[in-house]
Amino acid sequence: MKEAKAEGSEVKEKARRAKSAAAVMNRLSTEQKNEALLRMADVLVRASASIMEANERDLQRGRENGTSPSLLDRLALDDSRIAGIADGLRQIVELPDPVGDKLVSFSRPNGLLVEQIRVPLGVIGMIYEARPNVTVDAAGLCLKTGNSVVLRGGSAAIESNKRIVEILHAALSETAMPPEALQLIEDSDRKSVDEMLKLNGLLDVVIPRGGAALIRNVVENATVPVIETGAGICHTFVDESADAGMAADIAYNAKVQRPSVCNSMETLLVHRGFATRHLPAIAGRLLEAGVELRGCSETRALLAEAKPASEDDYATEYNDYILNIRIVDGLDDALAHIDRFGTKHSECIVTADSANAKRFLQEVDAAAVYHNASTRFTDGFEFGFGAEIGISTQKLHARGPMGLPALTSTKYRIYGSGQVRG
Amino acid sequence: MKEAKAEGSEVKEKARRAKSAAAVMNRLSTEQKNEALLRMADVLVRASASIMEANERDLQRGRENGTSPSLLDRLALDDSRIAGIADGLRQIVELPDPVGDKLVSFSRPNGLLVEQIRVPLGVIGMIYEARPNVTVDAAGLCLKTGNSVVLRGGSAAIESNKRIVEILHAALSETAMPPEALQLIEDSDRKSVDEMLKLNGLLDVVIPRGGAALIRNVVENATVPVIETGAGICHTFVDESADAGMAADIAYNAKVQRPSVCNSMETLLVHRGFATRHLPAIAGRLLEAGVELRGCSETRALLAEAKPASEDDYATEYNDYILNIRIVDGLDDALAHIDRFGTKHSECIVTADSANAKRFLQEVDAAAVYHNASTRFTDGFEFGFGAEIGISTQKLHARGPMGLPALTSTKYRIYGSGQVRG
Repeated sequence: MKEAKAEGSEVKEKARRAKSAAAVMNRLSTEQKNEALLRMADVLVRASASIMEANERDLQRGRENGTSPSLLDRLALDDSRIAGIADGLRQIVELPDPVGDKLVSFSRPNGLLVEQIRVPLGVIGMIYEARPNVTVDAAGLCLKTGNSVVLRGGSAAIESNKRIVEILHAALSETAMPPEALQLIEDSDRKSVDEMLKLNGLLDVVIPRGGAALIRNVVENATVPVIETGAGICHTFVDESADAGMAADIAYNAKVQRPSVCNSMETLLVHRGFATRHLPAIAGRLLEAGVELRGCSETRALLAEAKPASEDDYATEYNDYILNIRIVDGLDDALAHIDRFGTKHSECIVTADSANAKRFLQEVDAAAVYHNASTRFTDGFEFGFGAEIGISTQKLHARGPMGLPALTSTKYRIYGSGQVRG
Repeated sequence: MKEAKAEGSEVKEKARRAKSAAAVMNRLSTEQKNEALLRMADVLVRASASIMEANERDLQRGRENGTSPSLLDRLALDDSRIAGIADGLRQIVELPDPVGDKLVSFSRPNGLLVEQIRVPLGVIGMIYEARPNVTVDAAGLCLKTGNSVVLRGGSAAIESNKRIVEILHAALSETAMPPEALQLIEDSDRKSVDEMLKLNGLLDVVIPRGGAALIRNVVENATVPVIETGAGICHTFVDESADAGMAADIAYNAKVQRPSVCNSMETLLVHRGFATRHLPAIAGRLLEAGVELRGCSETRALLAEAKPASEDDYATEYNDYILNIRIVDGLDDALAHIDRFGTKHSECIVTADSANAKRFLQEVDAAAVYHNASTRFTDGFEFGFGAEIGISTQKLHARGPMGLPALTSTKYRIYGSGQVRG
């Protein structure tokens, strides 16, 4: 692919600089990268007041524009949040650097030695919404893996993001890491996103992080390769043989512990034989926690409180205190429902029947399939990766929680002594 | 992503059937898949006469349309070629099945057991040109890895492809593998390609195999994830310290042994200090082999036979008996040239200087980087993979020659005993 055509725009100019810097990034040692990240963390904390001052302007504008309290909360920074963001960078420093790892090494009969080595992806484009912590987090992960990164955050956080990147640039200018490796697109017009999506030759990958609309726009319009993250319509299937207490705990946790995230449950599928005995008790706990229940007709016959669930409801990621409940004939019916409405994110079976568990884990097509555990565990930190750039719901390159290796590519190095092909 | 909208078209209907069959494919054992592939091989050979009869109609139409002799040759099938294609299937049977491989397995402090398992990608779309052998080859590789495949070959081979797929369907109907897992799009209108590229929800990946125009169309228009294969503007850099005989052999092999393929050399970069002493002898051998030389002004001062090389020439994949030669100041100049004109495929340095070799292998951004060996080795068979679905020139998912594992994804299976997230 040739480089995109547009000349001299902010997006193209910054992507070009990021690409130039990528060649330097590729040569940095792990120590040099870690030193730069530690410096970034220190300087962020020292500049807290200045960051909060910029953040206040974002908040002020948000309040004037009638932004919802929950969005304002995501946007807001204070001393303790900034300290937390800096600690996130320090945690990334502690992680092993995957770049340079030798994945494969073999000799061929003709004497060629072939090695496959992890290398940085090059230049990563990140498109995300109004959470300034993502600015630092994504920068830390991309830079640790020797990539340049072009950030395009939501306009609601633009003042915070500009100040943060200014500060990080100052920090990097005292290290071996080129400040140009970190670029922030300041143009808040939607066109700047569209332009990023077509920058083949300058960007090696685009990673969207945010709501369904943002991700759909990226997937539908990008010519640059994309790592799709996100949408999660996750199911928990409670089989006939499930332990009632375990099923109730898992369902409660998957729905209530943090409903706003992608690995929370949206639909509970319940085996008919289990439902008559135990569904009312499970539903009672959910109702107490303030969950609105929507059910199929059989569910509603058992639960007076449940409103009717429509096909659209089954296809909706609520990210809220709302749950669909559907009574199913058994495993096959549950599998068919998940195949139809699932988004290949995280799916769970609660059962004491090991044959059913095995079939569920084998046949459900999703990034993470669980036997007797909450879907809420689909998370880079919970998996012990120490970091997470997102949760991939596509099948290429990376699937499920993405740690540092997901931000790398590979390269074959071949060592010869004059071999030619016969 | 929701499923594409178009209703009832051939493309969509066949992709749907492939998707239904993918669930069955996912459950087949390695033995069942191998048995099906062997049956396919046997039946192909038995039906040679029928395939050749269909092939003759393609050839006849091609001759009437003035198709070039080299294209007609690629299209033509005879007993021995069909036997070779069937042997290709038998070789795929011999390869280890990556599906089900456990890549990672670890326990978490909360007792969760997390396993990462190789799984089929699902439904693979293959878009290729007029080589009927690719029909069988791609089918064999995709089916061996438990995928369904939707094939869309070039219209010039449509009669051959239809007959081959008819025969393979008959073969599969006597096995555990569902014939529906193998689909051929017969609509030769370009629109059928465009439709495939947007089938999110039905196709998990599209792999284009063919010329630059075909690949560009796929990359620019697909919303389905793509594995980009192909274009190769490969360089050989002969450093000052290179062994003259080795440099001549490698340059000759990389250009002349098979100029029509993507891993052949298009531009020879020669250190000034080496050129004056040895370039005329190297060029002499190339000229004898019928290679047209195009050079920079310094090259032309040494080689009377060389025509001038333009910037466009450096950016062209000739796939022919034409070679650019440019004299460079040294390693940095060579690296800059490759960075500007390379397509991230295969690049070679011939040198006796290990520091220069190390820098070249580290700094050149390509799928395969060689020290003292011909770029012609970038090939799944030469690497010992036993098969090749193509050579990826992108950085996501797979890079370089792609064997069977490139046709798989992964999935996390998590085994719990009632764990919930705190």
